[in-house]
Amino acid sequence: MQTELSQQLGIEHAVFGFTPFPAVAAAISRAGGLGVLGAVRYTAPDELARDLDWIEAHVDGRPYGLDVVMPARKVEGVTEADVEAMIPEAHRRFVRDTLAKHGVPELAEGEAAGWRITGWMEQVARGQLDVAFDYPIRLLANALGSPPADVIARAHARDVLVAALAGSARHAVKHREAGIDIVVAQGYEAGGHTGEIATMVLTPEVVDAVAPLPVLAAGGIGSGQQVAAALTLGAQGVWLGSIWLTTTEADLHSPALTRKLLAAGSGDTVRSRALTGKPARQLRTEWTDAWDDPAGPGPLPMPLQGLLVAEAVSRIQKYEVEPLLGTPVGQIVGRMTGERSVQQVVDDLTRGFERAVDRVNRIAGRSGQS
Amino acid sequence: MQTELSQQLGIEHAVFGFTPFPAVAAAISRAGGLGVLGAVRYTAPDELARDLDWIEAHVDGRPYGLDVVMPARKVEGVTEADVEAMIPEAHRRFVRDTLAKHGVPELAEGEAAGWRITGWMEQVARGQLDVAFDYPIRLLANALGSPPADVIARAHARDVLVAALAGSARHAVKHREAGIDIVVAQGYEAGGHTGEIATMVLTPEVVDAVAPLPVLAAGGIGSGQQVAAALTLGAQGVWLGSIWLTTTEADLHSPALTRKLLAAGSGDTVRSRALTGKPARQLRTEWTDAWDDPAGPGPLPMPLQGLLVAEAVSRIQKYEVEPLLGTPVGQIVGRMTGERSVQQVVDDLTRGFERAVDRVNRIAGRSGQS
Repeated sequence: MQTELSQQLGIEHAVFGFTPFPAVAAAISRAGGLGVLGAVRYTAPDELARDLDWIEAHVDGRPYGLDVVMPARKVEGVTEADVEAMIPEAHRRFVRDTLAKHGVPELAEGEAAGWRITGWMEQVARGQLDVAFDYPIRLLANALGSPPADVIARAHARDVLVAALAGSARHAVKHREAGIDIVVAQGYEAGGHTGEIATMVLTPEVVDAVAPLPVLAAGGIGSGQQVAAALTLGAQGVWLGSIWLTTTEADLHSPALTRKLLAAGSGDTVRSRALTGKPARQLRTEWTDAWDDPAGPGPLPMPLQGLLVAEAVSRIQKYEVEPLLGTPVGQIVGRMTGERSVQQVVDDLTRGFERAVDRVNRIAGRSGQS
Repeated sequence: MQTELSQQLGIEHAVFGFTPFPAVAAAISRAGGLGVLGAVRYTAPDELARDLDWIEAHVDGRPYGLDVVMPARKVEGVTEADVEAMIPEAHRRFVRDTLAKHGVPELAEGEAAGWRITGWMEQVARGQLDVAFDYPIRLLANALGSPPADVIARAHARDVLVAALAGSARHAVKHREAGIDIVVAQGYEAGGHTGEIATMVLTPEVVDAVAPLPVLAAGGIGSGQQVAAALTLGAQGVWLGSIWLTTTEADLHSPALTRKLLAAGSGDTVRSRALTGKPARQLRTEWTDAWDDPAGPGPLPMPLQGLLVAEAVSRIQKYEVEPLLGTPVGQIVGRMTGERSVQQVVDDLTRGFERAVDRVNRIAGRSGQS
């Protein structure tokens, strides 16, 4: 499974794996793909450095990447406290009431919310980059528009390829104009922040819109058949996130959440603003239902919603309150029915890819050739 | 492009084309696919007979099919007048006000609404079948669940294959249990009534759920690349509806609507209950916006909404009131940028399919074989 891009990066399979877990990222790269560590949860630079050290020590010299969440434009002088002050009391009350209704315990005295998304604030993301550029990362991806021009220049000076996620051809063209190297076309069925256009339609549109820039297809891809379909649509690789969540190397810190993921069907996700204020696909739970209920106050815009719910999400996760317990995940969650190692997942992807190519060759009347 | 199903049906390409236009259906079959005439707009049996006569005369002996909208369960003794009586006055006022705001003229005195969806009422659909079974149709598709058992038996007695649309694996399994022969897996990105699960995820799920029944993939398919991707995902054929709307053989009776379709991008559709009361993908217009506006009364459930808006839709279409003018269409509308003949569309599909197979063979390292 080789494309121009996979050859340029010196990887065996055109499989790009996004994950918040260093052990998963390293295992993806060792298995011949490109592991990309999600940095958004690292608020402290030394924690990121520690985990990049770990990856360096466990990646057997294979290339890997980093994913940040960085706004292209800076909002000058706005602090987290300023944003906190903009949250209406009615919304805080709704959070308290919803948690109380489900008997969610408080955090311990002085315990900080473990789940934070301050990583999207520019100063935090820049701190992450200052750390990451000391490591031989090969790819820098940004989940929130194109990175700022100076960041792209810094990456290019270090021979780091820059990728950006796009949910429409229009966004993809903006990325190309900003000078990025790879577009990740993220379809409606993907986990996390996503637009309305499905992968089947989005991939070839983005490929044509930004050619000759390479495009990775994201959304709805978890099997070798889906990899083959995405590459058939013109992608130079696939960008997978959800599928790693139930690998043995992933550490969700929640057996209940792993059980929910393994039990969920493809119809058990929802594209909701409950988590960050922007539409993001995640497990549908009584928590997302509460926020999506027209009778409730509804989610606040980004970044207010993320700050509003940070402590609540931490409590739900810590105490594994099952009806409320969720995570960003795509529609392929329906196919995540058993734990596998990262190596097994990659083996299944590559074998399934070969079988799918055999199949389409038979249909094309080229059966002697497969 | 041959699968077991296309061989069984004796067609050249595994391309199934749904269309409300007899000229398009006949042209699809002549081009080597299987044209399927949508019957829902035929309220008078003799009109359907006239158009089936026309197809018979223009199909060069090739096979074709019929698509009906038939509920599996009968609601005894409910007339159209009973349903009309259930529509709240506030909703009728909202229709009048929205039309008045845009200056939509009245129909002429005594002129009937041309756009009706009474074809989904069981007695109307049964009338259509009484006509259709006098013709050598090869396929009977139902867009609203499995057809009733006696209809399936009648079809099978005439060697007619029965297909049913499904938006989830669970629905597909119900169809198989009802005794149908083919499942059409209709993804989120499709035009018309559709569920939430995208084609990339839905197709392989349905294929596995109903095996060995053949599955057609629907939703997001308008190019040969997309055909190849769908077949890679395990489908035995593709079911295309939107792509024919802007063919030269199609007769939308509205140059303005054709212009809107040719100009629309993939992001210009919406899955709205505005047309029938069930979520159906269509062009986003000021009409759908009005119904989807939380400040308005919102759509009524099926079948009330369809009856409520029938006259309004007819007026909007007749007078081509552009801001309100729409039609069911899928996200591939973004690729419908110029009028082509049906033959050209099929040629483009088959050539694009071959190129896509070449591409995936190169990626698989089988370039010498393509």
